[in-house]
Amino acid sequence: MSQTGFNPAYQRAVRDQLSTDQCVKGILAGDTHALSYAITLVENGQAAKRDMAYEILVALTQEAKTTNSKRITITGAPGAGKSTFIEHFGKFLTTKGHKLAVLAVDPSSQLSQGSIMGDKTRMQSLSSDPLAYIRPSSSGNMLGGVNTGTKEAIFLCESAGYDWVLVETVGVGQSEAFAAQITDMSLLLLQPGAGDDVQGIKRGVLETTDLIIVNKSDGDQKDTAMATARSYASVLQLFQPRIEGYRPGVIRASSIEEIGFEEIYLQILRFFEHVDSHQTLQQLRQRQDLFWFDQMIRERALEWLLANTPITDAINEARQHLITGSTSGFEALNAAMRDIKKTTP
Amino acid sequence: MSQTGFNPAYQRAVRDQLSTDQCVKGILAGDTHALSYAITLVENGQAAKRDMAYEILVALTQEAKTTNSKRITITGAPGAGKSTFIEHFGKFLTTKGHKLAVLAVDPSSQLSQGSIMGDKTRMQSLSSDPLAYIRPSSSGNMLGGVNTGTKEAIFLCESAGYDWVLVETVGVGQSEAFAAQITDMSLLLLQPGAGDDVQGIKRGVLETTDLIIVNKSDGDQKDTAMATARSYASVLQLFQPRIEGYRPGVIRASSIEEIGFEEIYLQILRFFEHVDSHQTLQQLRQRQDLFWFDQMIRERALEWLLANTPITDAINEARQHLITGSTSGFEALNAAMRDIKKTTP
Repeated sequence: MSQTGFNPAYQRAVRDQLSTDQCVKGILAGDTHALSYAITLVENGQAAKRDMAYEILVALTQEAKTTNSKRITITGAPGAGKSTFIEHFGKFLTTKGHKLAVLAVDPSSQLSQGSIMGDKTRMQSLSSDPLAYIRPSSSGNMLGGVNTGTKEAIFLCESAGYDWVLVETVGVGQSEAFAAQITDMSLLLLQPGAGDDVQGIKRGVLETTDLIIVNKSDGDQKDTAMATARSYASVLQLFQPRIEGYRPGVIRASSIEEIGFEEIYLQILRFFEHVDSHQTLQQLRQRQDLFWFDQMIRERALEWLLANTPITDAINEARQHLITGSTSGFEALNAAMRDIKKTTP
Repeated sequence: MSQTGFNPAYQRAVRDQLSTDQCVKGILAGDTHALSYAITLVENGQAAKRDMAYEILVALTQEAKTTNSKRITITGAPGAGKSTFIEHFGKFLTTKGHKLAVLAVDPSSQLSQGSIMGDKTRMQSLSSDPLAYIRPSSSGNMLGGVNTGTKEAIFLCESAGYDWVLVETVGVGQSEAFAAQITDMSLLLLQPGAGDDVQGIKRGVLETTDLIIVNKSDGDQKDTAMATARSYASVLQLFQPRIEGYRPGVIRASSIEEIGFEEIYLQILRFFEHVDSHQTLQQLRQRQDLFWFDQMIRERALEWLLANTPITDAINEARQHLITGSTSGFEALNAAMRDIKKTTP
C-alpha cells in the first residue's frame, strides 16, 4: 500500500502541482491538500523534493506563532488496540473542540490484525471527522534508523492549526524510541494479562513512558486489567521519573465502553501543566530539537558523502572484489575505507 | 555490567597485552584468552584498537582453511526461554563432540527474567564445558544500527575451531534482523499460547525464520504447545521460502524434559545439506558478506566524516545556534549541511 493512497487530498495536490508559496499559505489556512502534499515532500527520498519541503518548513517557522500543541506518542505491542483507542479517544478530543492530527504508522509490515483489515477500515469514523487529520506513514520509512519526516510532519500539522498531534508507533525497535524523543509525552498501551513477562516491553520503552493505559479493560477482562494495572504501577516505581517530579501513572481504559477517557484527558493536561511549571515546554522541546538534529545531521552527512562519485567508485570497486571472491569482507572494508580517505585531504 | 566481566580470560589477556601475532597464533591454537581479547578489540569504538583487530582478522583470513561451521541465529521475545534452551541444547551438541561458541546478547537492557537473575547464573553448566565458549555482548552495542563486531566475532570463533556458532538475539528491532542476515540459519523460539496476536512477532522475523521451535512444551502446556505449533505451521505457509525449495517447519521442544533436541539437530543438519546441494554454502555466505559490507561501509564512512575537524565545527556551530534559540531545528540542519558541503570540493 502506498504511503499516500489513504488520503485522496494528496492526489489532488499532486495534480495541482502546488508551489512552495501555495503550500505555505494553504497550510497556514488549514488546508489539508497543502498539508498532505508538504508531508509527502518531507518524506521524499529525493534531495530536490526535500529541499522544497525545507523551504516550506523554514517559511512556516517565520510565520507560525508559538505553538501550544500537545505532541504525544502512543505506543504498544501489536494487538494492544492502539488504532481502536486512537479512533475513540480521538473522537472524544474533537468533541471537546480540539483539532487533532494523527501520524499513524502503516501497520502493513506487522503481522497484526491491522494488516488483515487493511488501512482503509482503520479509524473510519475519525477519518471523516472535519476536526481530525489522519496521516499514515509507511513503517518502512520509520524503521532502519531513518525516521524521515516525523518531526517535520508534526510541525506541519501544528502550522495547519492542529493542537493535538498523536504519533502512533509500534512499541518495538527504533521508531518508537525516536518518536518518544521528539514528542512531549509518551503513552504506552497494554492489554490485560501477561504480567509476568512484561509483554516483551523493553526497559527503554518503560523509561520513556509518561502514562500507561491498560486497554481493553471491559467485559470479563476487568479483573485481569486491574491486576495488570497494579503490577505495572509497581514496575514504574523502579524507574527514575523522566520529568523531574512527575510520576507516571497507570489508567485502565476501554475503547468499547469508553471507560477512562476523561481520566486520561485530565492526566495529559496535568502532565503539560507540570512540565510548564517545572521547566517550561520550551526547554523540553529544545532537548527534542537537539536529539533530532544529532540524528538527522548524521543521516544527511552520510547521504551527501555517498553521493560523491569517487567515494561511490571506491565502494563499488571493493564490492566487486567481494563478489568475484578475490577478497574477504574484512579486506574489502579495509580497502574501501583506504580509498575513501584518499579522496579528501 | 561490563561486556567483558563475564569471561575472566579477557582480564588475563589485557594483563598480558597480547600482540597481533600472539592473538593470531593463540586463536588458531584454540586459546580462549586470545579469542576473547580479539573480540573485545573488534567491539572497541576506538579506531586504533579496531585497526589492530582488523590486522588480526586479515591475518586469520590467510591462515584459516575453508570453514564448515554452522552460523545460527536464535531469536525470540523475552520470556521465550532462549538462554535455557541454548544451555541445554548446547550441552546436547558438545556431548556429540561439537565445539560450540555462543555469542549472547547481554539481557541487562531487557526487563526480563534474564536481567533479574543476572548474567552469571545464565548458562552456568554450559559455560564450564571445555567444548563451549560463551561470549556476552552488551546489547547497547548491537542496537541502534551499530552491530559492531558480531560478524567479526563469528569469524574469530570459527578460526579458533568452533564449528557451531549460535548468535542469541532478542527478537525485536534491528539487532535481530542484522544477525539473521549475517548467519546461515535462523531459529525462532516461541512459547506455547498467545497464538492470536502472533506474540508480537514481526513479519520480517517470520520471513527470515528457517525453523520455529515452540519451547516449554512440557507439563500442562503440552496441548497449548501443540495448538501453537499447528497455528504457526499454517502462518509459515504464507511466506515465500527464503532458501529455494526449503520449507521452514515447526518443532515442539522442552529444555527441562529435553524433548525435541534430536529432531532439531537433524533438521539443522538437513537445512545445511539442502543449502549445500542447492546453492552451496559459499554463495549464501557471499550474500551475507555483501549485506554486511553495505552496512559497515556506511557506518565507517560516517565515522570518518565526523572525525573531520571542519565538519565537526560546522555541526557544533549549528548546534550552538539551536541551543541559544536563535534558529529552529530545520534552519540549523540546513545551515550545517551548507557548511559541510563547502568543506569539500
